[in-house]
Amino acid sequence: MKKAVCIVSGGMDSALAMYKAKQEGYEIIALHFDYGQKTEKKEKECFYKLVQNLNIENSLVIDLAFFAKIGGSALTDNSLNVPIDGIQEGVVPITYVPFRNGIFLSIAASLAEKEGAEAIYIGVVEEDSSGYPDCTQKYIQKQEEAINEGTKKETNITIKTPLINLKKEDIVKESKKLGVPLEFTWSCYKNQDRACGVCDSCRLRLKGFEKAGLKDPIEYI
Amino acid sequence: MKKAVCIVSGGMDSALAMYKAKQEGYEIIALHFDYGQKTEKKEKECFYKLVQNLNIENSLVIDLAFFAKIGGSALTDNSLNVPIDGIQEGVVPITYVPFRNGIFLSIAASLAEKEGAEAIYIGVVEEDSSGYPDCTQKYIQKQEEAINEGTKKETNITIKTPLINLKKEDIVKESKKLGVPLEFTWSCYKNQDRACGVCDSCRLRLKGFEKAGLKDPIEYI
Repeated sequence: MKKAVCIVSGGMDSALAMYKAKQEGYEIIALHFDYGQKTEKKEKECFYKLVQNLNIENSLVIDLAFFAKIGGSALTDNSLNVPIDGIQEGVVPITYVPFRNGIFLSIAASLAEKEGAEAIYIGVVEEDSSGYPDCTQKYIQKQEEAINEGTKKETNITIKTPLINLKKEDIVKESKKLGVPLEFTWSCYKNQDRACGVCDSCRLRLKGFEKAGLKDPIEYI
Repeated sequence: MKKAVCIVSGGMDSALAMYKAKQEGYEIIALHFDYGQKTEKKEKECFYKLVQNLNIENSLVIDLAFFAKIGGSALTDNSLNVPIDGIQEGVVPITYVPFRNGIFLSIAASLAEKEGAEAIYIGVVEEDSSGYPDCTQKYIQKQEEAINEGTKKETNITIKTPLINLKKEDIVKESKKLGVPLEFTWSCYKNQDRACGVCDSCRLRLKGFEKAGLKDPIEYI
């Protein structure tokens, strides 16, 4: 059976990406990164619930505590506040974690090469996004080339980005269609029991549900 | 002052790469990875001695214990023996760590972006090497493109590989010329007090000293 490494944060996008991999017939290796993000407790809970829901045998949580040493992002640095005033067009926000997807995809590639997996799924979204430079089609293309050049000749890995051109409302609709348990996903950037509703990530999520004409099953403050 | 992140294992090649960065006028951020390699104790000792020798203020050791979870290499997996029968042409050896340089360079890029560094130095050698796919000019080129595409517009990073076309004898000679304290470098793949002299890495090193007509200052069994 063909294998795929799925990078799963516990958010809505990566959850749908993993369900897509399942639908496409892959045996899944679910990979979660604990990089000291403020919301890791919630994210990890969601990750395990999703893994359980899909009956995935092979899951791995990788500790990347060094992200806090590098810092520079409101997601990993306690001295920086998560912005709540809405997304500004054309500006990379302070929640950007320097080259995070480069690190994630390189580790996923290492695991994929070791396990003989032929695909990596990642839930990046270019359209309705926060404007992170490591979430674009152009970047993913170059990253895939680097991975295939820098691994063994017999290793051939495709980076699958089934959400890259979707709008948030499509992600909500598609998740419903595929039976993704959206109550087990967490998008908020803040470390609280209930989602804040005003950080960039909550705003994008709520807009998606609204436009899809559906109610978000998670609790908000 | 222009800054460079230097990836320094504690081996001869990366030590020379860092001394080259110094010679080229960079303020150095020295970066060492502890990835659970069998020889980490020796390597870290050498790393700190080199950092001290160059009076570098900014050094960082990053823990990547997850490499052991991924496994698949004789450098990180205790159930696999380090080969001692010499390098086989055209075969990627069991000491290859899947996409190690991809992970290292991505983390270095993250740090470089955060710190505003314009270069990353890495001591990869294509010529006189063990045949690792993540040590070639072609791979480095693609990795640099991926990094610059996946980071902010104002981030421009060059990956510098001053050793890539050198033979081991040139590395020895060049190190002598630049005053690299070769007694503070460790190349052996085995976890012993003295170098084994027969693993691929020792063989390459010893051949380099021999052809350079110099004596290796470290102790061998």
